[in-house]
Amino acid sequence: MFEKKFKVAVIGGGSSYTPELIEGFISKAAELPIGDIYLEDIEPGRHKLEIVGGLVQRMVEKAGLDINIHLTFDRHEAISGADFVISQFRVGGLDARIRDEKIPLRYGVIGQETTGPGGFAKALRTIPVTIDICRDIEQFAPDAWLINFTNPSGIITETVLKHTEVKMLGLCNVPVNMVNYVAEAFGVEMERVYIQFAGLNHLVWGQKIFLDGEDVTEKLLLQLASGQDFNMKNIPDLLWDKDLIESLGMLPCPYHRYYYMSDKMLEEEIKEASHTGTRGQVVKMVEQELFEIYRNPKLNVKPPELEKRGGALYSYAACNLISSIANNKKDIQIINVKNNGAILDLPEDSVIETNCIIDKDGAHPLSVGHVPAKIRGLMQVVKAYEELTVHAGISGDYHSALQALTIHPLVPSSSIAKKLLDDILAENKEFLPQFF
Amino acid sequence: MFEKKFKVAVIGGGSSYTPELIEGFISKAAELPIGDIYLEDIEPGRHKLEIVGGLVQRMVEKAGLDINIHLTFDRHEAISGADFVISQFRVGGLDARIRDEKIPLRYGVIGQETTGPGGFAKALRTIPVTIDICRDIEQFAPDAWLINFTNPSGIITETVLKHTEVKMLGLCNVPVNMVNYVAEAFGVEMERVYIQFAGLNHLVWGQKIFLDGEDVTEKLLLQLASGQDFNMKNIPDLLWDKDLIESLGMLPCPYHRYYYMSDKMLEEEIKEASHTGTRGQVVKMVEQELFEIYRNPKLNVKPPELEKRGGALYSYAACNLISSIANNKKDIQIINVKNNGAILDLPEDSVIETNCIIDKDGAHPLSVGHVPAKIRGLMQVVKAYEELTVHAGISGDYHSALQALTIHPLVPSSSIAKKLLDDILAENKEFLPQFF
Amino acid sequence: MFEKKFKVAVIGGGSSYTPELIEGFISKAAELPIGDIYLEDIEPGRHKLEIVGGLVQRMVEKAGLDINIHLTFDRHEAISGADFVISQFRVGGLDARIRDEKIPLRYGVIGQETTGPGGFAKALRTIPVTIDICRDIEQFAPDAWLINFTNPSGIITETVLKHTEVKMLGLCNVPVNMVNYVAEAFGVEMERVYIQFAGLNHLVWGQKIFLDGEDVTEKLLLQLASGQDFNMKNIPDLLWDKDLIESLGMLPCPYHRYYYMSDKMLEEEIKEASHTGTRGQVVKMVEQELFEIYRNPKLNVKPPELEKRGGALYSYAACNLISSIANNKKDIQIINVKNNGAILDLPEDSVIETNCIIDKDGAHPLSVGHVPAKIRGLMQVVKAYEELTVHAGISGDYHSALQALTIHPLVPSSSIAKKLLDDILAENKEFLPQFF
Amino acid sequence: MFEKKFKVAVIGGGSSYTPELIEGFISKAAELPIGDIYLEDIEPGRHKLEIVGGLVQRMVEKAGLDINIHLTFDRHEAISGADFVISQFRVGGLDARIRDEKIPLRYGVIGQETTGPGGFAKALRTIPVTIDICRDIEQFAPDAWLINFTNPSGIITETVLKHTEVKMLGLCNVPVNMVNYVAEAFGVEMERVYIQFAGLNHLVWGQKIFLDGEDVTEKLLLQLASGQDFNMKNIPDLLWDKDLIESLGMLPCPYHRYYYMSDKMLEEEIKEASHTGTRGQVVKMVEQELFEIYRNPKLNVKPPELEKRGGALYSYAACNLISSIANNKKDIQIINVKNNGAILDLPEDSVIETNCIIDKDGAHPLSVGHVPAKIRGLMQVVKAYEELTVHAGISGDYHSALQALTIHPLVPSSSIAKKLLDDILAENKEFLPQFF
Repeated sequence: MFEKKFKVAVIGGGSSYTPELIEGFISKAAELPIGDIYLEDIEPGRHKLEIVGGLVQRMVEKAGLDINIHLTFDRHEAISGADFVISQFRVGGLDARIRDEKIPLRYGVIGQETTGPGGFAKALRTIPVTIDICRDIEQFAPDAWLINFTNPSGIITETVLKHTEVKMLGLCNVPVNMVNYVAEAFGVEMERVYIQFAGLNHLVWGQKIFLDGEDVTEKLLLQLASGQDFNMKNIPDLLWDKDLIESLGMLPCPYHRYYYMSDKMLEEEIKEASHTGTRGQVVKMVEQELFEIYRNPKLNVKPPELEKRGGALYSYAACNLISSIANNKKDIQIINVKNNGAILDLPEDSVIETNCIIDKDGAHPLSVGHVPAKIRGLMQVVKAYEELTVHAGISGDYHSALQALTIHPLVPSSSIAKKLLDDILAENKEFLPQFF
Repeated sequence: MFEKKFKVAVIGGGSSYTPELIEGFISKAAELPIGDIYLEDIEPGRHKLEIVGGLVQRMVEKAGLDINIHLTFDRHEAISGADFVISQFRVGGLDARIRDEKIPLRYGVIGQETTGPGGFAKALRTIPVTIDICRDIEQFAPDAWLINFTNPSGIITETVLKHTEVKMLGLCNVPVNMVNYVAEAFGVEMERVYIQFAGLNHLVWGQKIFLDGEDVTEKLLLQLASGQDFNMKNIPDLLWDKDLIESLGMLPCPYHRYYYMSDKMLEEEIKEASHTGTRGQVVKMVEQELFEIYRNPKLNVKPPELEKRGGALYSYAACNLISSIANNKKDIQIINVKNNGAILDLPEDSVIETNCIIDKDGAHPLSVGHVPAKIRGLMQVVKAYEELTVHAGISGDYHSALQALTIHPLVPSSSIAKKLLDDILAENKEFLPQFF
Repeated sequence: MFEKKFKVAVIGGGSSYTPELIEGFISKAAELPIGDIYLEDIEPGRHKLEIVGGLVQRMVEKAGLDINIHLTFDRHEAISGADFVISQFRVGGLDARIRDEKIPLRYGVIGQETTGPGGFAKALRTIPVTIDICRDIEQFAPDAWLINFTNPSGIITETVLKHTEVKMLGLCNVPVNMVNYVAEAFGVEMERVYIQFAGLNHLVWGQKIFLDGEDVTEKLLLQLASGQDFNMKNIPDLLWDKDLIESLGMLPCPYHRYYYMSDKMLEEEIKEASHTGTRGQVVKMVEQELFEIYRNPKLNVKPPELEKRGGALYSYAACNLISSIANNKKDIQIINVKNNGAILDLPEDSVIETNCIIDKDGAHPLSVGHVPAKIRGLMQVVKAYEELTVHAGISGDYHSALQALTIHPLVPSSSIAKKLLDDILAENKEFLPQFF
Repeated sequence: MFEKKFKVAVIGGGSSYTPELIEGFISKAAELPIGDIYLEDIEPGRHKLEIVGGLVQRMVEKAGLDINIHLTFDRHEAISGADFVISQFRVGGLDARIRDEKIPLRYGVIGQETTGPGGFAKALRTIPVTIDICRDIEQFAPDAWLINFTNPSGIITETVLKHTEVKMLGLCNVPVNMVNYVAEAFGVEMERVYIQFAGLNHLVWGQKIFLDGEDVTEKLLLQLASGQDFNMKNIPDLLWDKDLIESLGMLPCPYHRYYYMSDKMLEEEIKEASHTGTRGQVVKMVEQELFEIYRNPKLNVKPPELEKRGGALYSYAACNLISSIANNKKDIQIINVKNNGAILDLPEDSVIETNCIIDKDGAHPLSVGHVPAKIRGLMQVVKAYEELTVHAGISGDYHSALQALTIHPLVPSSSIAKKLLDDILAENKEFLPQFF
């Protein structure tokens, strides 16, 4: 069926997530023939890359697959002629994340690595590197699909689609976890659940929920409102307010907590920061343990401890997407794509997160039309923030950056926005060439 | 030139503002021949109506004008056959306003009579009465223009344009005060200043500012950023942040302080509430003094003390509008009208505040197109709040009301939204037939 | 898998097409369990209904299926509790069609039963009956899917979606024939071909064509431009102009000939009319022959002669659609649905023909965005004609009817439009209660 | 009031229209102080330029004005530092126009210099020269306003606004003639009439008509429908069809005859062509007579014979526009401007003809919203034709040119479109560098 085996490049290959990704490829081997996987990272990450690379090599061998694993610090080599480039790097590492979480807390603002000022800082650091990678792809693998997991995934995808020629698809494990939650709530397999999503990355609503094609939205929300909650590893585990869910009439995503219960989430964050440390600090410890485990030469499968890391179903989403492209499946997956009018209430050149048909030609959004006022306003103001962030991240324009933070729903005033911005710029100076 | 003299009905005629309005009519007498003015109010306001009516009668006599002043508690009589109906009533009086200001403060939220939860409560009280008035106009004066000053003026106008056949124009004295501020800043007459406005009521930006047709936006903002501030009586007098103004590149309206400097505004409100009382409490005292002054049988002009009341240039805006309609002037005024695509980033059936051509056929907005991201998001989220408020105010739907407050930028969480809503409903029960 | 067997009602059950439809149900029996089929028709069609009913009964028996065939003239009985209602009736029969074809020819205008003045006349006759049927469905089978084949299918669907609560899906065999043509051109099975359609019923373009996911648009158009043509039975068989195809860069539908080669099509029609008679006259003869064949008590399969009738793949399209709904398949089919922003260049409440995901919840269009100028203008002017026709068909407004014909691209002037309209009204008087 | 006198450059200064323009400047002298007028033309037009220049010089002297008249063949000199550049040139002269009229007639298609294939040919010739002029303006007079009269004025304006930085305003004398017609119909002065226009150049509808602010649309249409017709010199004088006008409910522009009565207009053109010659041939003779008259050294006013030339109120429109810009008047004039959402049914970057506020900052359209279906379709298909023509005129792309003509409502088929295009290209070769 396939004329050739695929070449996959993983940018940020030394990530602790990589074994999960490889497990995915192994499980899809029958339908997705991969010849070469290039794990690329930067020189300072050599140690981690070698540990991960060793584990990955053993996993592939154990599976009896004929995939060549390459470790490299040469991005050109990794990208050149690739069919799929997977982006999962983290500029500045977990130390930068921890700063992103702590700076906002100084000013009584939620500190989270993708939402709010923390995500803003991460975007500014990530944009220049992403553009660099895209220039390489344009030149050395113009037909490659860039599958992005690097957060904030929606902002990064919008940046790439506005400023490069690269065919990028933005992925996130949130929608698939929402499907999984519904499946668990009804005690069925994920395949029987379908959700009509609409929104932005980490700000996506399940407008309607179906089980075997029947609308079960009300039934599900009743469970959610009565405390049968769901969440993801990296978000404080607060129950949804019953009245909120009833009046919303939709399934919010776990990250909506930052907007709908900002006060309690901030309290929770402050408490966590002083007890266990920020989520970044926790993850940093988890990662150290993981690498200890990975380096065990007898380990040749993904270790169960990886689950603690967060990022559940990450590999599931990525491998499904790649396989559906490769196999021209025309199934439906939730992707960050160019809006192009799918949601009428957002600019046409925005990136949105919604249900798409996946085939060899990429991801084709289903038409959403208008969304109801109750979700429209929040979606629009966050999109305006994202648009300004993309512009600031590309141009290094201080004014756009300040306006981005000023209008962010979690930032209480322009004077706090300015303090946040000045701290972010000062403490990330080495990663922000566009500003300095 | 005119075949007949006009009939004007003032709903809420016993308001302390009425003398200013009458002063306006007197000054426009040459171009705007008025035969009858009906000051209408409700029976409990008889005392105030009689005082105001006496002063008004004396003012008209002093001016030597042949206008019949009628005092009435019969709305049908007032409205029947009117050419212009002016709406300036306040449901629940100043006591309701004071509650609107105090309820939010309980939960650490800004309490203001038009912006945020206070304005939301006022909208819920005002909508049923407004619809009643409009039913009368539809029946007894279908050709009349309803000129609305009752706040929140944008929400009330949207309600009327969506749910009645009445030809309503929403007025506000904020834009004209912004023009006045610019004129004072440059030391020129207001007529030489032109501002391209775009936004919503109490959330309107001056996108570009012209003096004698030359773009002076930058020059003006430089003054604003360096502390040459302007404001209105009823808003705490905080200086704009220099960086905010520079990065915004537009002239914000005074009410933008509630969004751009929420933290300081809240502090200020809390301080005021504990010292002088809320703005509503201050106004209540001012009003009592005013009525004392009004009852003086020798007083036959608008007393200067009225200026303390706030509402500067209110009469200027109203009389200019009425005269431009009557005289088919085709000049430009800033009105709350149906969007109809003038601002592409808002729903077509929304009400917006923008530059309009005024003639006998009403107010015709100039096309604005898209607005920049930095003002788009805030405008859109507030519009979504307004849309939900209109729906809740008409239908009494608790869920819409809760979502309206939940997504309001000044409300930190859905659980606080619920507390606010429950208090508002409980303490305004007698005025909210749609909910009870 | 299914809890119950489906009830299907066929409005216009006495049509010569019915055996093809039944053949489709028989072939899908394994995945689509049907318990009852009600063939409904009007009393004057009793003779035809009984002949068709007999054949259908024999077909079902031959197939060994347990489907109850009911013949009825009672629409309530047919519709009551139905899961699927199939609409394929023809108001006024073939005699009305022949008039539709001949009236335009009097004035040198193309006479065709779906495009131009002929389709306009058919719409006016069909709309009142369709609305009647929908009122029954609203009352007696509110959950039923109405699958419409009655032409002009797009206009009828737009009428129903604008003026009733019925869940209607408009079908046409043109798109599936275009897929079939491409499959034949490449010598592959239809399943391997995918076309991105955009447009209106009988005015649909294949914007991009894929074979196994690869874009083969250029390759296909090269064949089309070099004379490897395709067409449908009921359209004069003229070759496409090479330059037209090259400059268009898309696959036109067979009916586009009426617009892109109006002059030759008119010539051809005039020639045909004087030789073999209009297409309607030919079909009338074919039908008489068919019914002769159908009445043969030994016939128990669809006779091959039916192919001459036109309407190829009609049953394929209908049964695929019904099965995908019933089985919640989420495959892609081409349906006439509410636009809702899928094509940004057409009104949101328009009906368009485009690629849709089909599941239990109906047909969900993929987002198209803007279409290129070269197809946009024609699509828009025909949509404006359709919108006016829907309005005229519902209201009986002469002015809307005249404007509809005046702006139709095939009508050369308003004075000819008036002559056409007056003749159409006069000669269809008995079928046009809304006008008389 | 003005710090300096204005410099005006007239491109195509040798035109027979120039004396009318100068008459306009003379009549506006009190409010519009002009220091220098540069009449620029190409060397082959030296003879005409000198004749016109002589007359203009005498007119200015007679008026006792201190305006310097310069004759030049140096475009840089004319444009450099100009405040207003007026474009009224004709590429290829009247001989090219006569070809534009005759080529379509060969194929039974309307031949008109601005509408249909004739206007298409004129656009292709005019676009390269216009772009050249704009490059000069960008360089030598970046603040100048380019006032365009060169036809097809809408297409030329769209070209300039899409492809240059020049501040262009497209003018046409059609709207002002419609106002004049209404004024004459009611026996009043033009100032008392106001028309809400919407549409494209030479395809503009008067949606509503006001006299002293009262809606007189119905009254006016009654007159129009009963034969009280109006027209312009260059359009065959056919009466409007009563039913068309009644069903349209708006005031069509004279050029609408080409679309609404294509059949009779074609007949008329054919008749004219064989009797008096095409309109271009008539104008050529008129022009020769005019230049004879102009050279009379005693003539020092605009001669009455110029009226025969067509172009009534041309100077009125141009001088009003220039004066309103110069004086920051904020009055309403009808201009071809960027749509930017003013008409929601057309692309945002299209040029439309509509009511605009005129001030120092240019022309600001009033918001139109959606237009009714009866005018929407024709407006949209002509706009698509215009968009393709702009693209073809800039790029020389044969395919776009062919599609432009194919979808034009007056061209019956793609094969005739091809014949027209090939003849147009062949016979205008010397003027079409973009194609050869």
